[in-house]
Amino acid sequence: MESAEDRLIARFFRPLATHPGALGLRDDAAFLVPPAGHDLVLKTDAVVAGIHTFPDDPPSALARRALRVNLSDLAAKGAKPAAFLVSAAFPGDIDEAWLQSFTDGLRADAEAFGCALMGGDTDRTPGPATVAVFMVGWVPHGEMVQRAGARAGDAVLVTGTIGDAALGLVLRKEEGLARQWALTEAQCAFLLDRYLLPQPRVSLADILRAHAHAAMDISDGLVGDLAKLCRVSGVSADIDVARIPLSEAGRRAVEADAGMLTTALTGGDDYELICVMASDRVDSFRMQAERVGIPATVIGRIVAGNEEPRFIDGQGRAMAFVRGSFSHF
Amino acid sequence: MESAEDRLIARFFRPLATHPGALGLRDDAAFLVPPAGHDLVLKTDAVVAGIHTFPDDPPSALARRALRVNLSDLAAKGAKPAAFLVSAAFPGDIDEAWLQSFTDGLRADAEAFGCALMGGDTDRTPGPATVAVFMVGWVPHGEMVQRAGARAGDAVLVTGTIGDAALGLVLRKEEGLARQWALTEAQCAFLLDRYLLPQPRVSLADILRAHAHAAMDISDGLVGDLAKLCRVSGVSADIDVARIPLSEAGRRAVEADAGMLTTALTGGDDYELICVMASDRVDSFRMQAERVGIPATVIGRIVAGNEEPRFIDGQGRAMAFVRGSFSHF
Repeated sequence: MESAEDRLIARFFRPLATHPGALGLRDDAAFLVPPAGHDLVLKTDAVVAGIHTFPDDPPSALARRALRVNLSDLAAKGAKPAAFLVSAAFPGDIDEAWLQSFTDGLRADAEAFGCALMGGDTDRTPGPATVAVFMVGWVPHGEMVQRAGARAGDAVLVTGTIGDAALGLVLRKEEGLARQWALTEAQCAFLLDRYLLPQPRVSLADILRAHAHAAMDISDGLVGDLAKLCRVSGVSADIDVARIPLSEAGRRAVEADAGMLTTALTGGDDYELICVMASDRVDSFRMQAERVGIPATVIGRIVAGNEEPRFIDGQGRAMAFVRGSFSHF
Repeated sequence: MESAEDRLIARFFRPLATHPGALGLRDDAAFLVPPAGHDLVLKTDAVVAGIHTFPDDPPSALARRALRVNLSDLAAKGAKPAAFLVSAAFPGDIDEAWLQSFTDGLRADAEAFGCALMGGDTDRTPGPATVAVFMVGWVPHGEMVQRAGARAGDAVLVTGTIGDAALGLVLRKEEGLARQWALTEAQCAFLLDRYLLPQPRVSLADILRAHAHAAMDISDGLVGDLAKLCRVSGVSADIDVARIPLSEAGRRAVEADAGMLTTALTGGDDYELICVMASDRVDSFRMQAERVGIPATVIGRIVAGNEEPRFIDGQGRAMAFVRGSFSHF
């Protein structure tokens, strides 16, 4: 009397649902006990096969990406991940190997980032596989890091390197560019992987909360995302383009083709964090971030005003961006 | 520099996001302060246009259905709804009128059931409109009503009337049956509406928690859902089919076509609740449920054993069901 959906959940998803509140996915809902003195942080983001991933990406990459884009938002809010639910629509032609790869990816990242599968829903769709993840995390009461906290005079930092994923996407679409950009095989693989598998800065959450006035993750490109942060904070920013950290591979691409700088700054999918804080907190922040293996770089400062942030190049000129932010819509 | 998705969210979804923790949907995530001494109850369920609804249903019905199927699960767990997020994939051909109707539906039910829009995600899809709702509710710590609590000797009750939505679906597909079943116009409209717009038993949550050993909502048909509840509780049940409450319209359909009884018991989409409790709690439960306008009827009892529940007809014979439960998968 079990339905096909029941069997699918029992076989592929139940082994992941080890949290006691998940009730083995055998109930209508799950329960979770909040730690005393903490607020919930809630986020949902979805990935669509063929739009956010390539058709030949493994299903595990779709699953991991769906989790990681949400984990990245939680990290930017200074929150610790706790639990997630998955709402997935699968096309009719997926088979057991597909589902095994998908749930293997989910399990690997649930373990790696310490969040528990608490429930979900699967449906058939005539469209492409669509995976929405709902993520729940915790922050100490009242301490969620918001976008709307930047103040004139604050320093603007970014974690890691910018533009790798956007360049990886360009490379994925046109393999011949690897030679044109004079990339080594390892550099090529690095850029491709930066697109395929976001690296959410989960371990930075506590440090960020202790230092930042405002933060957000970079999913739609540094230029557009910084503009959003400035807009809701009621400020502007002056960014020194020369200080924006590029990877060695990213630098080679930009040296070979100056147009790739715009791609790097506007292309999206970085999943690095923009961190805004008082100047006197920068050293402490950078040192603590370094200790958890995350480099952070000052790229400019918040200024008064309501113009779009200025990205100043080596000649002192503000760069112009036709399309500051990537949108799938 | 705002993307099309930003504009869509600002125009259609932001007006709904009035909860302070939603931050006007201008941040990466939302925050929510849990009431002291309460656990979270988490649920996600999705609806797909054309699978769970008809192509000519208004978009508001799609939105309301997406919220209500989740609210129904929370009610069955004795939980009070608090907040929800929406992950929606829209086909390219939807227009502003469609979005207005969709968000009107969302707003109406968010207000009616007291839950706040806290965030969401929209994507384009080449497939049909797909709406996943993620619902968060509260129960007093440790008190979530589970499926796995039924004990031999307990009474089995259902709220409302059973089978209306399944019969409404049959009627929707074959309008001529209204005459064959000798339905009045009002009865016909009643059955169609029972399918179109689930009525989650949100106001029963506290009463259920105070009385029930186990509960679940009926989304996939009474026969299949009761079997699930019994299975995880390690018990069986004897159900007296004659006591299963049918609406006047439902009774007419079954009188005209005896096969419709199976449809009513297995067809799904009831969104009534199965409530299992000690026999000596039944009177108090029914009286309190009555006070909030929800009729509840004893239909049988829990017995020891691990067989499928028996549905005993007027002649003392167990009915046989080929397909106990509806599955979209």
